[in-house]
Amino acid sequence: MPVELKGNILVTGANRGLGLELVKQLAETTGQEAHIYACSREPEGSRTEALRQLTTRHPGKITIIKLDVADEESISAAVQAVQDQIGDAGLNILINNAGIRKPALSGALSATKKNDMMEVYETNVVGPFTIAKVGLFSAEVGNDKTACSSAIINISTAISSIEKCPETFSAAQMYPYRISKAALNMLTRCQAEDFKTHNIVVTAIHPGWVQTEMGGENAPLTTVDSVLGMLSVISSLSNKDRGMLLDWQGNTIPW
Amino acid sequence: MPVELKGNILVTGANRGLGLELVKQLAETTGQEAHIYACSREPEGSRTEALRQLTTRHPGKITIIKLDVADEESISAAVQAVQDQIGDAGLNILINNAGIRKPALSGALSATKKNDMMEVYETNVVGPFTIAKVGLFSAEVGNDKTACSSAIINISTAISSIEKCPETFSAAQMYPYRISKAALNMLTRCQAEDFKTHNIVVTAIHPGWVQTEMGGENAPLTTVDSVLGMLSVISSLSNKDRGMLLDWQGNTIPW
Repeated sequence: MPVELKGNILVTGANRGLGLELVKQLAETTGQEAHIYACSREPEGSRTEALRQLTTRHPGKITIIKLDVADEESISAAVQAVQDQIGDAGLNILINNAGIRKPALSGALSATKKNDMMEVYETNVVGPFTIAKVGLFSAEVGNDKTACSSAIINISTAISSIEKCPETFSAAQMYPYRISKAALNMLTRCQAEDFKTHNIVVTAIHPGWVQTEMGGENAPLTTVDSVLGMLSVISSLSNKDRGMLLDWQGNTIPW
Repeated sequence: MPVELKGNILVTGANRGLGLELVKQLAETTGQEAHIYACSREPEGSRTEALRQLTTRHPGKITIIKLDVADEESISAAVQAVQDQIGDAGLNILINNAGIRKPALSGALSATKKNDMMEVYETNVVGPFTIAKVGLFSAEVGNDKTACSSAIINISTAISSIEKCPETFSAAQMYPYRISKAALNMLTRCQAEDFKTHNIVVTAIHPGWVQTEMGGENAPLTTVDSVLGMLSVISSLSNKDRGMLLDWQGNTIPW
């Protein structure tokens, strides 16, 4: 059965950029029973102001959850907070959108420190790894073959493609970021195998080069169009998309 | 120009398994001017006894270097020790063989801790990343177009293939290991682009499933045959092999 945009949906890194736009469009387009758990490292901070305003505009639709994906205790606390609300229903869709890029500029070899490598991996790969481990999905889903599939969406990037590296490297070296996203693609494909029996589709999506803090103002794609595309792709995912890397228009990107 | 097995050759993780056999065969088959820098975390420890014996059997041919690739200070000290000996000549071949696999058994999702993910990445990816950064290769090589190419060989694995994951996952889940090696493949391909102008060929090699401490006794391939194959592949590397993942018989493995 295909994935549907309904039920309990969790988005990490939801306070700005693509994460904020994902929450906005999900809040506007999903049915009344859908609920969005919007995660942010600092729910009270100034950088989460836009998300708080969005939550006020959609009463009862969005719950802001404090979550730092690089911190195991923070993940445990966030999972507990979500489980307290959803109970046995479980999660329907998890969107691992939180990600970082270090160092700030090119990410050339000489400018990249060991800590950049470790921190980017911790947030971009081990974060999604740990969240998926805690089992927020309902155990019932896998047994009910008539149910819609649940989904884990890992936000990746076109420059995660090892195959295409020779074409993209000179324009965007970004060692820590690209390496972490290639690793995230492997995590995606492993989980896709692992979670087949639980009826959870796991797919990586490249959002396009988007006008965000990370993408910069020269990017050709607006966050609105990127998220419109990604939600359309997510809502049409089926078994053939398990463990694939798709772009925001649904095209397959080679590993 | 092709890669030749000569000059200054550095092998990490050289005290046992494939690393030890690489040093042995290099000591036996390279010309008189070749010198092997054999790195071990504990040059004085009982686990390095076999390497010390090998060094005694080949007087003046092998220098044991203390190196823990997970420790930046250890890398700096090792690089200094090697540079003191080789001077302007630079390194000809670097074989990043040191690697770990955690947790010890299956590496299934539920059995894998965050620290396993971080530590395996630190040794298997960030180690080779940091060593390549310090510039052990001679700056002269890139300018002399008649010179043989230098080479960086990153020891990877067939189960690093994201493409082939659905075929291999159930037999060897090993989340931290496979993810780290997919990341190492991306590092390999980035460096292959980055170091083109320096005339350094960077290639990842899958040694086969080998009878080592890591591979277990059921493995079909001996360390002798694996290393014979890998050295044959290394000595025939040329431009077309830059940034590829080859097995010990020279076959290309898809990303």
